[in-house]
Amino acid sequence: MSDAGGPGLADYADLVQPSETKVLLLVLDGLGGLPLEPGGPTELEAARTPNLDDLAWTAEVGLHDPVGPGITPGSGPGHLALFGYDPLRYRIGRGVLEALGIGFPLEPGDIAVRGNFCTVDGAGNVTDRRAGRIPTAEAERLVEALERIPNGETRVFVRAVKEHRFLLVLRPPGPMSPDLADTDPGRTGVPPLHVTAGSTAAQATAALVSEWLRAAREVLAGEPAANMALLRGFSVLPDWPSFPDAFGMRAFAAAAYPMYRGVARLVGMEAIAVDEDPSALVTALEDAASAHDFFFLHFKPPDKAGEDGDFDRKVAVIEEVDRIVPALMGVRPDVVLVTGDHSTPSLLRAHSWHPVPYLLWSNVSRSGGAEGFGEGPCAQAGVGVRRGRELMPLAAAAAGKFVKFGA
Amino acid sequence: MSDAGGPGLADYADLVQPSETKVLLLVLDGLGGLPLEPGGPTELEAARTPNLDDLAWTAEVGLHDPVGPGITPGSGPGHLALFGYDPLRYRIGRGVLEALGIGFPLEPGDIAVRGNFCTVDGAGNVTDRRAGRIPTAEAERLVEALERIPNGETRVFVRAVKEHRFLLVLRPPGPMSPDLADTDPGRTGVPPLHVTAGSTAAQATAALVSEWLRAAREVLAGEPAANMALLRGFSVLPDWPSFPDAFGMRAFAAAAYPMYRGVARLVGMEAIAVDEDPSALVTALEDAASAHDFFFLHFKPPDKAGEDGDFDRKVAVIEEVDRIVPALMGVRPDVVLVTGDHSTPSLLRAHSWHPVPYLLWSNVSRSGGAEGFGEGPCAQAGVGVRRGRELMPLAAAAAGKFVKFGA
Repeated sequence: MSDAGGPGLADYADLVQPSETKVLLLVLDGLGGLPLEPGGPTELEAARTPNLDDLAWTAEVGLHDPVGPGITPGSGPGHLALFGYDPLRYRIGRGVLEALGIGFPLEPGDIAVRGNFCTVDGAGNVTDRRAGRIPTAEAERLVEALERIPNGETRVFVRAVKEHRFLLVLRPPGPMSPDLADTDPGRTGVPPLHVTAGSTAAQATAALVSEWLRAAREVLAGEPAANMALLRGFSVLPDWPSFPDAFGMRAFAAAAYPMYRGVARLVGMEAIAVDEDPSALVTALEDAASAHDFFFLHFKPPDKAGEDGDFDRKVAVIEEVDRIVPALMGVRPDVVLVTGDHSTPSLLRAHSWHPVPYLLWSNVSRSGGAEGFGEGPCAQAGVGVRRGRELMPLAAAAAGKFVKFGA
Repeated sequence: MSDAGGPGLADYADLVQPSETKVLLLVLDGLGGLPLEPGGPTELEAARTPNLDDLAWTAEVGLHDPVGPGITPGSGPGHLALFGYDPLRYRIGRGVLEALGIGFPLEPGDIAVRGNFCTVDGAGNVTDRRAGRIPTAEAERLVEALERIPNGETRVFVRAVKEHRFLLVLRPPGPMSPDLADTDPGRTGVPPLHVTAGSTAAQATAALVSEWLRAAREVLAGEPAANMALLRGFSVLPDWPSFPDAFGMRAFAAAAYPMYRGVARLVGMEAIAVDEDPSALVTALEDAASAHDFFFLHFKPPDKAGEDGDFDRKVAVIEEVDRIVPALMGVRPDVVLVTGDHSTPSLLRAHSWHPVPYLLWSNVSRSGGAEGFGEGPCAQAGVGVRRGRELMPLAAAAAGKFVKFGA
């Protein structure tokens, strides 16, 4: 199912022109919130953010649905939307997402799949699809053993993720298809499913994975809980239009967590790891400023505070970001977009579907005169609820990255 | 023309999770209005609605275009939009719509078509496409005669609708295609068009309908005005994704008019007939509360008052609904959506394209602090103009019916 509404990346790529301007995208992960009681402020509204408020006053402000109305975005889809990609159309396979999450350096042609250690009984039926959620340390011991399984010319990588979850990557010498069905039966009391190819192109991959699973079962045979593995979401790095092509910008990303660097690299950004302290974002930006013209800075703490249900900490970390805004403006960006990839209201302790406030600042933005940066001002002084993927084209346009469409 | 933008029903169906929450959709038919003079209140704004105002204050409010900007919705499309269906994509055939309107119990495979009695001259040319708009009582006599035409193994139903309009339903023993062109030439001075099949699959149906029309002409031969029939909009019950599947809710509908029950049943709701008095909606809701988790209550009078151009009566019937709000809240719905299927300003005495105010109340709604429920507050404290079909996903999300999209 795809969202065919509105212009796509190829339409924007057709309009790109050279430009010396700089665009800054500052993502406060999980920024959107809810009041603790009706009529009260949200986390962002409660936060003292004089610098963001100053920007908001002369910025275009509004709200965005990252994926679509009523849809609660995961981190991958939320960021793709901010990068201008329709998350309903550009879907990241589960195996690839797992690799991005732990920073595994996938190469084109690698087949990535998510593994679960599981428990099977003497008859071969699954009795626990998560092997009692074994500790990560135990999984690390097991994946080392699994990685020693010989696989002919195909290199195989196995990495522990968390508890029973692991990543399996096949790097074959030639082209292979990831068109394989999951082996996870989705329930207990039945054996794991056979590895079946969805097309003739995938038959060689199916044979390789079958043989690997047979050997894995032998390796794991003596384990009390994790004596078998289930595989889900065979996938390869997607072949998407690149962000630099679509928007005409040499893109740089700085993020403390591998997932966000991974999604940024997926669309063609150069990404570096930084500490979680906001000042690390300032340093990263200053260092990257001369060689790039797009800068994605990711700040995770608001999402974590929201997921912990800690309203006050979410307020505090938003205030921390506000304090670095003058230093960020020191590199003289022409366009600044500040928003979140989704809402994470501390009231709900989880990601949510609520529209996310944004401010789009430039000296050619049409301001609504918002009195501060918050969900309320962004609704009332704003232009309504945009789709998340609309923001990047607006930022690029404000930076002069596009020529006129048609004569 | 189709609006393929944004997530579709299948996208939402993929996200459904079990949940015990209850969602109430209260439709005030034709709710949106216009002031009688510039600066004056609309019907909804003029109405004293303390209970709806209370809800609005803590609700998300806004306006919606049921079908799209500038499009005046009929009752079918307006309701489909509120049920989350894009009316540009999900189209109800004219024959099926006619059947829904009179409550004819269509079965899968039935071929429904709208008929018009018409007048033809001695040469067989149409002289009046509506047979002088004969009285409904006269049409009732004629359809009885038409229903006695023998049709082999195919059951044929003929029902008077209003004046010259009737419904023809063929119930063949096996599969038949509705892919037939209209026989209405759309103008006078020419004969009715032959029944032509649009595909080979429809040739048997074409032969059957031709034979029926030949016999009908014989039956009607002696009539002064209604001496022939024209057929338009051959159609079958559509095979759409069901509302319960898309939104994870066992759905109940209560409406005084067959059209609304018909559209509700079309998408998989259980529908019952109620009196036009608003208290009947309360009783229906209370009776259905335990066995369902979605409740569509339809209230027709605001639309009728609007079509009659009676501003004061529209105000009065809106006030009537307001008085049952406390009783509706007595069943403790988790989410309440109050809106209309379209605007019917009494100034225009007709349906109109104007965006319709809505309030979406829940304890996880982000309130704009609207001062009352009305077009003005919904614009000023609202999130802009949403597409009508976006409201149901927002209501379902607020009720916890969906899991996260992507990791």
